[in-house]
Amino acid sequence: MSVKYPTPTINNDKKIKIDNHLKSKGMAFENALNISNQYYLSKGIANIHKKPTPINIVKVDYPKRSSSKIVEAYYQTPSTTDYNGIYRGKYIDYEAKETSSSSFSFTHIFKHQVDHLINIRKLGGIGFVIIYYKKYNEIYIFNIDIFEELYYKGEKKSINIDDANKYGIKVSQGYTPPVNYLKGVDELIDKNN
Amino acid sequence: MSVKYPTPTINNDKKIKIDNHLKSKGMAFENALNISNQYYLSKGIANIHKKPTPINIVKVDYPKRSSSKIVEAYYQTPSTTDYNGIYRGKYIDYEAKETSSSSFSFTHIFKHQVDHLINIRKLGGIGFVIIYYKKYNEIYIFNIDIFEELYYKGEKKSINIDDANKYGIKVSQGYTPPVNYLKGVDELIDKNN
Repeated sequence: MSVKYPTPTINNDKKIKIDNHLKSKGMAFENALNISNQYYLSKGIANIHKKPTPINIVKVDYPKRSSSKIVEAYYQTPSTTDYNGIYRGKYIDYEAKETSSSSFSFTHIFKHQVDHLINIRKLGGIGFVIIYYKKYNEIYIFNIDIFEELYYKGEKKSINIDDANKYGIKVSQGYTPPVNYLKGVDELIDKNN
Repeated sequence: MSVKYPTPTINNDKKIKIDNHLKSKGMAFENALNISNQYYLSKGIANIHKKPTPINIVKVDYPKRSSSKIVEAYYQTPSTTDYNGIYRGKYIDYEAKETSSSSFSFTHIFKHQVDHLINIRKLGGIGFVIIYYKKYNEIYIFNIDIFEELYYKGEKKSINIDDANKYGIKVSQGYTPPVNYLKGVDELIDKNN
């Protein structure tokens, strides 16, 4: 099914810059995560990648014998999450989001993505949502257990910065890697074991 | 970088049908794997997905306010493998191939994909190549250890059906799931532990 590119994947907006030192390099949150993952890979620490955006290809032209050009295609709704891979022998799976508001609204994540992460936890993996609060220049990891609680059982329809501080694991920012989120993942793994 | 759609990913050719009972349903090997993975997911056994094909989007039109249409895009070389996910608490990663020849030629897999699977094993994951030999209607799993040996150190430039029998784990075919490859993965996990 081809659909309009969905509202939830706001992190694909390359125009949004982040406000820390990465600003000077014009790096969006997604890009900062990708560079961090490249760093982890090069150091033999983890092998985590962003999945390509799913595209429904309708028409392909062959202007030259050697090349094919897609001339009609549409964005599809992703069936799972943005990122997955392996770290410390564990299956890692997460959705990355950024918000310019003071609160992360649940309308910016698909229900089936939350359910996917719940299923990952059931199968013994590490699932979480990582959110960049642009306004405060702060990044938080929400273990899927906590995210599920807030999403399905909470009274609020969003996670504001105070709740992020209360329920999330704060992620440090730096140069190499720009987003050292695996330090936060260590906490999740150690808690789960 | 936009490239010609690479020779190695022959399993994207939807015109190729497989010769067993699936033939009547017009299922290609990739499709049979996807259906098997849906079955495993629905039964709570595993959560394994095919990654979308990476596409480099050059131009997008907005014919209506509500929709976006990609009008120029190109296939990209995949940086990793076709499939990954979680099974028995383990990170699973594999490349799926089919050959209509009597031998699987190493020209049909990228070196960086083989190296990716080697890295996965180093990090504690389960990596393998699964090959469908259409001519014989047989499917084999090659643990990355064995595949690495054949690919980098072997004298042959391909794996013929006799070597597949010798070095691979034969996968049974059926109805639900059409390709019960996780039974073969059980052998890999049990051997690694």
